[in-house]
Amino acid sequence: MSGPRRGRPGYDQETVLRRAVELFNTQGYDATSIGDLARDLGLTKSAIYHHVASKEALLSAALDEALDGLSSAIDAAIEADPGITALERLRTAVEESVRILTQHLPAVTLLLRVRGNSEIEVAALARRREIDDKLTTLVRAAVAEGSLRDDLAPEVISRLLFGMVNSLVEWYRPGGPVSADALARSVAALAFDGLATT
Amino acid sequence: MSGPRRGRPGYDQETVLRRAVELFNTQGYDATSIGDLARDLGLTKSAIYHHVASKEALLSAALDEALDGLSSAIDAAIEADPGITALERLRTAVEESVRILTQHLPAVTLLLRVRGNSEIEVAALARRREIDDKLTTLVRAAVAEGSLRDDLAPEVISRLLFGMVNSLVEWYRPGGPVSADALARSVAALAFDGLATT
Repeated sequence: MSGPRRGRPGYDQETVLRRAVELFNTQGYDATSIGDLARDLGLTKSAIYHHVASKEALLSAALDEALDGLSSAIDAAIEADPGITALERLRTAVEESVRILTQHLPAVTLLLRVRGNSEIEVAALARRREIDDKLTTLVRAAVAEGSLRDDLAPEVISRLLFGMVNSLVEWYRPGGPVSADALARSVAALAFDGLATT
Repeated sequence: MSGPRRGRPGYDQETVLRRAVELFNTQGYDATSIGDLARDLGLTKSAIYHHVASKEALLSAALDEALDGLSSAIDAAIEADPGITALERLRTAVEESVRILTQHLPAVTLLLRVRGNSEIEVAALARRREIDDKLTTLVRAAVAEGSLRDDLAPEVISRLLFGMVNSLVEWYRPGGPVSADALARSVAALAFDGLATT
């Protein structure tokens, strides 16, 4: 298939954003220009600027996509049915985080590489820390109710849990042998029930 | 403290390698030149070349340091006392991998960022895959002896386990509140025994 020309129907902001995120992930955000994106899509730079204000706006939109998804997943787990335990909430938060990661894999991959090199990145890191704090609060509540082992610091548990979740971006690909739902349950089973049978 | 001048005693190959790995990790391997390293150490470029053949040689030495450590840890676990179970071997492999990671944190951090952009990187990725294969074989043996849950594919278990281990490079720093040994035991406890108390 040859690349579409400027103005070809079907090229909308969403398509431009998807390709931008792919390029940011494969060749790095700093190394990617709007010119690269235009060439990749077979569009002119001015056609790109018809859809998006700037490269920074694309980064911001992608990071918000990942952060909105992860935030909603954690908030939903926190605000779930008051009758369930903190352990069940935490387990839900882990499973939902895996689902968000698999559904928004390119955006989450980009988020996890952010190092704070610009205002947009600093703001994204601040939102990541808010999410981490909520997770640590959930871990602490589960330890307090006696459902989670207390020989590990809540901060360490939270980091190990989501270190495992986040490592999925290194190898998980949609359409592979493991479904996103099975993977979500596997990650939670490993973390909460342990791998050993005894 | 001011930077030492060329030929100052105490600047040996090891010191040059340590600083090179720090620079590779903070500003990226591609973006780091021998000139940057010389400036950072307060040496001339020719003084650096007295210690090391090339930038590639520094990368190769750092990756070998990480890979030799991880390989030895896994091989020691595999070849341990024949009286122990595959589960005990796997648990030892996880704990020892954490210890190697904490002892060789900059070199392992560098290794985990390698994407195969040169012959040296391709060779390092091949060695990483060998280590991953050995770990997957250990997981499979533990499933076969009935000591590890069999509702997760051995490859997935291996990736999740070492995804968690490798995520430590994101936040673990020597001298922090958690000792390397306590961390190694915590990671193994989470993975094998699970976080839930029931």
